[in-house]
Amino acid sequence: MSRVAYVEGQYLPHRRAAVHIEDRGYQFSDGVYEVIAVEGGRLIDEESHLDRLERSLRELRIAPPLSRRSLTIVMREVVRRNRVVNGILYIQATRGTAPREHAFPAQNKTALVMTARQTDLHRERLAQDGVTVITIPDIRWRRCDIKSVSLLPNVLGKQAAQEAGAFEAWQIDRDGFITEGTSTNAWIVGRDGLLITRSTDTAILGGITRLSVLDLARRNGVEFVERPFTVGEAKAAREAFLTSTTSLVLPVVRIDDAVVGNGKPGSLTLKIRDLYLAHMAGAPAPHLG
Amino acid sequence: MSRVAYVEGQYLPHRRAAVHIEDRGYQFSDGVYEVIAVEGGRLIDEESHLDRLERSLRELRIAPPLSRRSLTIVMREVVRRNRVVNGILYIQATRGTAPREHAFPAQNKTALVMTARQTDLHRERLAQDGVTVITIPDIRWRRCDIKSVSLLPNVLGKQAAQEAGAFEAWQIDRDGFITEGTSTNAWIVGRDGLLITRSTDTAILGGITRLSVLDLARRNGVEFVERPFTVGEAKAAREAFLTSTTSLVLPVVRIDDAVVGNGKPGSLTLKIRDLYLAHMAGAPAPHLG
Repeated sequence: MSRVAYVEGQYLPHRRAAVHIEDRGYQFSDGVYEVIAVEGGRLIDEESHLDRLERSLRELRIAPPLSRRSLTIVMREVVRRNRVVNGILYIQATRGTAPREHAFPAQNKTALVMTARQTDLHRERLAQDGVTVITIPDIRWRRCDIKSVSLLPNVLGKQAAQEAGAFEAWQIDRDGFITEGTSTNAWIVGRDGLLITRSTDTAILGGITRLSVLDLARRNGVEFVERPFTVGEAKAAREAFLTSTTSLVLPVVRIDDAVVGNGKPGSLTLKIRDLYLAHMAGAPAPHLG
Repeated sequence: MSRVAYVEGQYLPHRRAAVHIEDRGYQFSDGVYEVIAVEGGRLIDEESHLDRLERSLRELRIAPPLSRRSLTIVMREVVRRNRVVNGILYIQATRGTAPREHAFPAQNKTALVMTARQTDLHRERLAQDGVTVITIPDIRWRRCDIKSVSLLPNVLGKQAAQEAGAFEAWQIDRDGFITEGTSTNAWIVGRDGLLITRSTDTAILGGITRLSVLDLARRNGVEFVERPFTVGEAKAAREAFLTSTTSLVLPVVRIDDAVVGNGKPGSLTLKIRDLYLAHMAGAPAPHLG
């Protein structure tokens, strides 16, 4: 089956899908993106992703590429043409093509690109074993709340994690607090059983999975607090996990050299993962026992 | 005359010059660039630019796209095919095209793109009148020494400058020191006549024009010091100017609401500009009177 990409109004064979070398995404990382999980052909948390996409565009003053309604039509068409049942939809919007000058071009048209592909997001093996993370200094810019394609530090961080044999790198701000992973949000369960994740500010991306997990926790009586936590707290935590659109909810069993809890996925973590899987499956969320 | 771009081994009409949507430059800002001035058909400070390009690639562990010798052949060919006598050559190298994953791809080929265009870099009017700058917080990442295409904060800063009617925005670090402009290095002449520019560290790009100006100062007996300076110092300075490949040496006559010196381009600034123009013209640098 040949893949199809949507590029500025056209559906093209994936291998021929290209943007101009003066697309500002390519020359200036002047663009934003979203990754949406597809499960059973449905776009998971679609509205929240579209809300965030609109926010990212607004923060950068990039005009929306299409009306929200048209956008959702293209999104479905890209999923359909690629016959994705379970996988991901990738959306990128940039400030378009213009002669290279740093400031916004006087004339430009937002350029929209979409791809979709079948892939298994559940990765039950990882969920059963748990994953390991390393910690690294957070060297990113100060507007990580914008989901921009300015991802070079994230690339370097993820590479560092992989070379250390880890799944992810948790980034540490100047005050010793963990901000987030390079493509995931970070969570711990404190010694007192309280679920903790960093509050959203300009230092982290407001993850959609993060938002859903908080909502599931709220609806299932899981006590939580949104506040920064230190590396020390994380290493001494009872449980830890990470969330993202493509990682769903994955237990963290080691942080650097520190084993988290008993080195196995925590019970609250697994319950939250189950709640999230049920949410993805579209079932009414099971009540937490 | 139609413009020609070099894209991964091919010379293409500019309007058809494109990269794949999975080029990591487009999706991750995972690439570096150089802008080289062309004057009288010659590439100004070519060796220094190539040194820096190699350093940027090395820091990001991106393989060189071509040998240095082959690169210089392509550079000349791009200038020639675009009939550029006075203008700029733009070079971008990314980690190439690969299925979207943050970490470095296992298999990839560095992708090289070049363009060139005729343009007047001298802008004598700006040099005579001087330019104004605003100051903004430096919100960039902590590896600004790498000339990457991760330029979104620079884009926002330059846009802020333009909207304020200014030529450039000087960025201020957390300690109140000016790092640099969004695409230029910052310089002042202190009350005592000493030339000051920030020392190179990971907070600023080591500008090639900056390097040449320091060399010209050295060879012409102009005393200088490389150290951070505050916004207050800059506003109280006798003179100020900025440097870059495309701005050459431009006097700064206002910083925010503070008039610099008597509001006219400073005498040392203009001497340095003359030295730099002579350097570009390939003439033996005139001795500073």
